[in-house]
Amino acid sequence: MPEITLARLAEQVGAALSGGSPDQKISRLAGLSEAGPEDLTFLANPAYKPLLARSKAGAAIVGKDIAEAPMALLRTDNPDLAFAKAATLVSPPIPPPVPGIHPSAVIDSAARIGKDVSIGALAVVEAGAAIGDRTVLYPQAYVGAESTLGTDCLVYPGVKIYHRVTVGSRCIFHAGAVIGSDGFGYEFVAGRHEKVPQIGNVVIHDDVEIGAGATIDRARFSHTEIGEGSKIDNLVQIAHNVITGKHCLVCAQTGISGSVTLEDYVVLAGQVGVAGHIRIGKGAKITAQAGINANIEPGATMKGSPANPYMLEQRINVLRQRLPELFQRVGDLEKQLEKSASS
Amino acid sequence: MPEITLARLAEQVGAALSGGSPDQKISRLAGLSEAGPEDLTFLANPAYKPLLARSKAGAAIVGKDIAEAPMALLRTDNPDLAFAKAATLVSPPIPPPVPGIHPSAVIDSAARIGKDVSIGALAVVEAGAAIGDRTVLYPQAYVGAESTLGTDCLVYPGVKIYHRVTVGSRCIFHAGAVIGSDGFGYEFVAGRHEKVPQIGNVVIHDDVEIGAGATIDRARFSHTEIGEGSKIDNLVQIAHNVITGKHCLVCAQTGISGSVTLEDYVVLAGQVGVAGHIRIGKGAKITAQAGINANIEPGATMKGSPANPYMLEQRINVLRQRLPELFQRVGDLEKQLEKSASS
Amino acid sequence: MPEITLARLAEQVGAALSGGSPDQKISRLAGLSEAGPEDLTFLANPAYKPLLARSKAGAAIVGKDIAEAPMALLRTDNPDLAFAKAATLVSPPIPPPVPGIHPSAVIDSAARIGKDVSIGALAVVEAGAAIGDRTVLYPQAYVGAESTLGTDCLVYPGVKIYHRVTVGSRCIFHAGAVIGSDGFGYEFVAGRHEKVPQIGNVVIHDDVEIGAGATIDRARFSHTEIGEGSKIDNLVQIAHNVITGKHCLVCAQTGISGSVTLEDYVVLAGQVGVAGHIRIGKGAKITAQAGINANIEPGATMKGSPANPYMLEQRINVLRQRLPELFQRVGDLEKQLEKSASS
Repeated sequence: MPEITLARLAEQVGAALSGGSPDQKISRLAGLSEAGPEDLTFLANPAYKPLLARSKAGAAIVGKDIAEAPMALLRTDNPDLAFAKAATLVSPPIPPPVPGIHPSAVIDSAARIGKDVSIGALAVVEAGAAIGDRTVLYPQAYVGAESTLGTDCLVYPGVKIYHRVTVGSRCIFHAGAVIGSDGFGYEFVAGRHEKVPQIGNVVIHDDVEIGAGATIDRARFSHTEIGEGSKIDNLVQIAHNVITGKHCLVCAQTGISGSVTLEDYVVLAGQVGVAGHIRIGKGAKITAQAGINANIEPGATMKGSPANPYMLEQRINVLRQRLPELFQRVGDLEKQLEKSASS
Repeated sequence: MPEITLARLAEQVGAALSGGSPDQKISRLAGLSEAGPEDLTFLANPAYKPLLARSKAGAAIVGKDIAEAPMALLRTDNPDLAFAKAATLVSPPIPPPVPGIHPSAVIDSAARIGKDVSIGALAVVEAGAAIGDRTVLYPQAYVGAESTLGTDCLVYPGVKIYHRVTVGSRCIFHAGAVIGSDGFGYEFVAGRHEKVPQIGNVVIHDDVEIGAGATIDRARFSHTEIGEGSKIDNLVQIAHNVITGKHCLVCAQTGISGSVTLEDYVVLAGQVGVAGHIRIGKGAKITAQAGINANIEPGATMKGSPANPYMLEQRINVLRQRLPELFQRVGDLEKQLEKSASS
Repeated sequence: MPEITLARLAEQVGAALSGGSPDQKISRLAGLSEAGPEDLTFLANPAYKPLLARSKAGAAIVGKDIAEAPMALLRTDNPDLAFAKAATLVSPPIPPPVPGIHPSAVIDSAARIGKDVSIGALAVVEAGAAIGDRTVLYPQAYVGAESTLGTDCLVYPGVKIYHRVTVGSRCIFHAGAVIGSDGFGYEFVAGRHEKVPQIGNVVIHDDVEIGAGATIDRARFSHTEIGEGSKIDNLVQIAHNVITGKHCLVCAQTGISGSVTLEDYVVLAGQVGVAGHIRIGKGAKITAQAGINANIEPGATMKGSPANPYMLEQRINVLRQRLPELFQRVGDLEKQLEKSASS
């Protein structure tokens, strides 16, 4: 990692230095709590001001309203932006893969490869697949037959995209993600589960990000679909024929059963489960570990398993903890009544 | 995708056309709800009849009992079968991988490869492994030392099968599945978790399907075992020494702890957790997100965490929502008694 | 698998044979419950004594205190150690990969490879990466740019380690694990989720084991960190900026949200969820499927979602099952009072 002086940092990010030596060196970035004497930290959110006073950072990028702190200060109008600039100086990004096809990649002659595409070592692109301009396939990625990726996608190492998957532009797939596996569908015939063919596909719209190890099954017929701008976290399971709207957030380890529809701007927190054929309305929010087994109105916030409206579930949780007390009170009432009956 | 006329479709699937033009073209298959004017849909289950009346499909394959609907109809004795035939015409399957070993695959000279096996690009087969006739390893799959696969298996891209795993015939492994990783076993010695060697294996019987990203650990000694015909969904965790019976269904994101036994025909819905050393009886059903920490009788249906018999848990869930009311009623009783005591 | 006689086994493991023929052959190892007449089992934990009496094993390694059992006995001072020795005789381990770089691996010329390193077929090591002495990369593993691995690590097939990840010595990564993927961070701007750059890294200390399919995200800035000797099970999700202390155990399918701190010796059972920015104190234990949304004191044992202290949650669970009875009792009280009021 390169070192950089406070003087140089202040100049490059457009901040005013105070309370530190211009020659003091910074070699790392860190959050307020973890930073040490050689680290640069920052305060953008006033809520964290108490952390600044206790931080052991060597220097901090702060707003112009911060008068004093126990480290060198770089004052600026926009600490967030300044810190982002500082980050590229202190921790310069790994250069992106250069355009070109690594000689060890296995590209079918019937695949179409766009301009300035980068295909890493040992990647595989099957017949009839199409890779859009400037898209990057990292090493060991796999794009199946007749699948198409738009422009400017990032496909991290080892991602597996089955056949006939359609991906928009500017999508990101993290390592271990699997797109287009068969839906979990069987018919019970003569004591055995007979496989129901899954001959649909997966359609992923523009600006979608799919987390590490997430799995998205292909549709039985028609398609499983992830709406524009939606973001899917690590280890999420999306079953066959699920349709998510635009700009949804689905947090880690959540599972969405077959034929569920999420309207736009739905947020599912971590480890949520959604039963099959449910519709969750626009902008609804589901809290962590909730279980959804009925349609949810637009804008609702739901909690618990089975889920209730947020405020009701909070109240139930408080009362649930008072069950020992309630049993006691009912017992007391019974004793009182018995006594008064026998008196 | 090829287009096909209704006249040609009717002829090929053995159905009688009514209410549409023989020249009308179909270019896609879709479910009743999603289908549009260029799509073919179907009705096999009478429960979905109301959806047919509202469907926007251009044509539908239906039973002979359907008199009228708002689209062209293809009437037949077996709509399910006819639709499956139509599917292969409208959406012809990707041709299966041809037998042969891709030159980029790395096959140990001490591996035994059956007849008409297909081994894709950049797959690896280690020493002493054996691949049965007609089995397909897709690109980037891995079969470890001394593992054996039966005939007619499908191993999708990037599946990792460790050493000494035994797989039957007609098994399917989806991308990202990991078979034979070490069980999570440690001994606590002098403040540290010392690894307990996991020297057993995994045995997978005939006709098993393993979902994308599912993980099955090898046994400490002896074997972890998946019974004939059982189906394991995406992102399921199966710990060391688990034994599942025949024809079990384990839905997505369920976790089964070490040394659990599932008897035949057990169904675990999604996100279920089963504690270690439990036995779940034949045909028992566990609903989604349940937590099982005691043996379950054959045929039982269990719900909740910790789980109760289904009907009890349903009743408790209803009463739980009435806790605010119950606290109110008890408070009222107390006031009444107080009043009557003081009067 | 080689067969071995009881006489030879007794000699090799230093045990005294009684109650069986010296020529009796053993071909397999098995647990007490699963063992059959050709299997060797063992009893180390006195709690399992009743299982020994019912075991169908052909022979058992036992302590000197065991007088009689229904199979041949190999008596020794340390049954655990003797069984481990027997294991290497009956089920000799697969020879470890030999040092050297497989010709199909793709190693950047700017990577540094230590002594006696083994790099398997089709593995990839990017520019600036460093692999410590005697570390093994199995086939199809990936080590990103500027990542460093210590000595004596095992990286199983298909593991993906992104750029700038730091790994200590004697670490084990199981197949499908992903280390260093982007944290799930977005800013909501003009109706869209804009990606927040994740420019930190992941630091994994010595003696850590990471399970199959587990995912560990890189930090926004600074680092996500797994403490020395901690063990992470299959399909665990660890979000950006999580810090785990030393010697923690995190069981399968648990999810830890961003910026959580686990102090040393914390145990999270399976399918636990921990909300963001929580601190869990030293030695705390969280039971399976619990949901943690507040800081936890050192040494506490917590259960339930939302979690309560273990004993309270156990009591609540018992009372929760008695809700039908409680509603009945309150109804009876109301009737009694009504009657007495009207009399």
